[in-house]
Amino acid sequence: MKEQLAFLLEIDKLKSVVRKSPLIDRTRRENSAEHSWHLAMYALILADTANAPVNIDRVIRMLLIHDIVEIDAGDHPIHEPTQAGVQEQLEQLAAERLFSLLPEEHGKVLMSLWREFEAGETADAAFAKSLDRMQPLLHNIATGGGTWVEAGLSRDQVVARYGPAISAGSTTLWNEAEKLVEAHFERPAVL
Amino acid sequence: MKEQLAFLLEIDKLKSVVRKSPLIDRTRRENSAEHSWHLAMYALILADTANAPVNIDRVIRMLLIHDIVEIDAGDHPIHEPTQAGVQEQLEQLAAERLFSLLPEEHGKVLMSLWREFEAGETADAAFAKSLDRMQPLLHNIATGGGTWVEAGLSRDQVVARYGPAISAGSTTLWNEAEKLVEAHFERPAVL
Repeated sequence: MKEQLAFLLEIDKLKSVVRKSPLIDRTRRENSAEHSWHLAMYALILADTANAPVNIDRVIRMLLIHDIVEIDAGDHPIHEPTQAGVQEQLEQLAAERLFSLLPEEHGKVLMSLWREFEAGETADAAFAKSLDRMQPLLHNIATGGGTWVEAGLSRDQVVARYGPAISAGSTTLWNEAEKLVEAHFERPAVL
Repeated sequence: MKEQLAFLLEIDKLKSVVRKSPLIDRTRRENSAEHSWHLAMYALILADTANAPVNIDRVIRMLLIHDIVEIDAGDHPIHEPTQAGVQEQLEQLAAERLFSLLPEEHGKVLMSLWREFEAGETADAAFAKSLDRMQPLLHNIATGGGTWVEAGLSRDQVVARYGPAISAGSTTLWNEAEKLVEAHFERPAVL
């Protein structure tokens, strides 16, 4: 019991990891804990848009834990350059530290689920990753450009950075997203 | 698809509903979206402490949606007085507005799950409610008193306000919580 409670107190720190994405009301940037909640809701609401049959409760669990490595490794914004391998290594160390706070068997299960998400190869992980890309896309469009304006991205860059990941998990979502991206770059405006 | 996305954009507002409970690092108060994420993690980690057999994925879904009515109704802090029935009525109206943004069948399923949580009668709902009470208790203890200090509560008041709800879902958790409460009131200190 003490190990579980220590883990649950430790992950409170995810609420202080600030992402680049804005809240839709633009009052501040989103943190990784509330982002994880929002993605779990995306999974619950958009379950029937996945390309392949998915176990939506596994997808939800994956999304709940997918970012907790950021407690140690920080958020890596999609539009910023990275040294190949460095972020991955930091996240691996973070996963080992955090999941080892739990009783061994429990920690192993979560580590395995996190690695599955990172690899993105199973249907569940591919769909989870598509939601993780879809949500900030919608926030950018709803706020008149968000991080795309900050990074000075063109329509083609946006399509290249979001299209493959979203369509790998859900062509239905990407078809919808692409229409929104087209409309946004024709005339950027708040949704 | 448009209805689902409209709902997902609307619930972004839960990130701006601020609760009384502090973050463990005391930098600010918690919001209801990140609180909901944290509770879903509590369910995942503490599943085996429930009094009765529970479907932990249903508990997680319940906890993900349990507070979204606060978008319209606001958070009702446990240690503040309320007019009987008023908060319940506001929350009922909020649930009707928010869930009706979704396609009808989907909205009905979530409404039913939310009502089950509110009633707190099933094993799943009782356990969800016990976690919803356990988490702020731990935050208060970890921050040297938190909302209990603000409200000037005695040990007996704390036991009366947290004990029944936590033990209804998990006597294991309440046994642990009670020890922490006793130690806290003997000598309030940060965990």
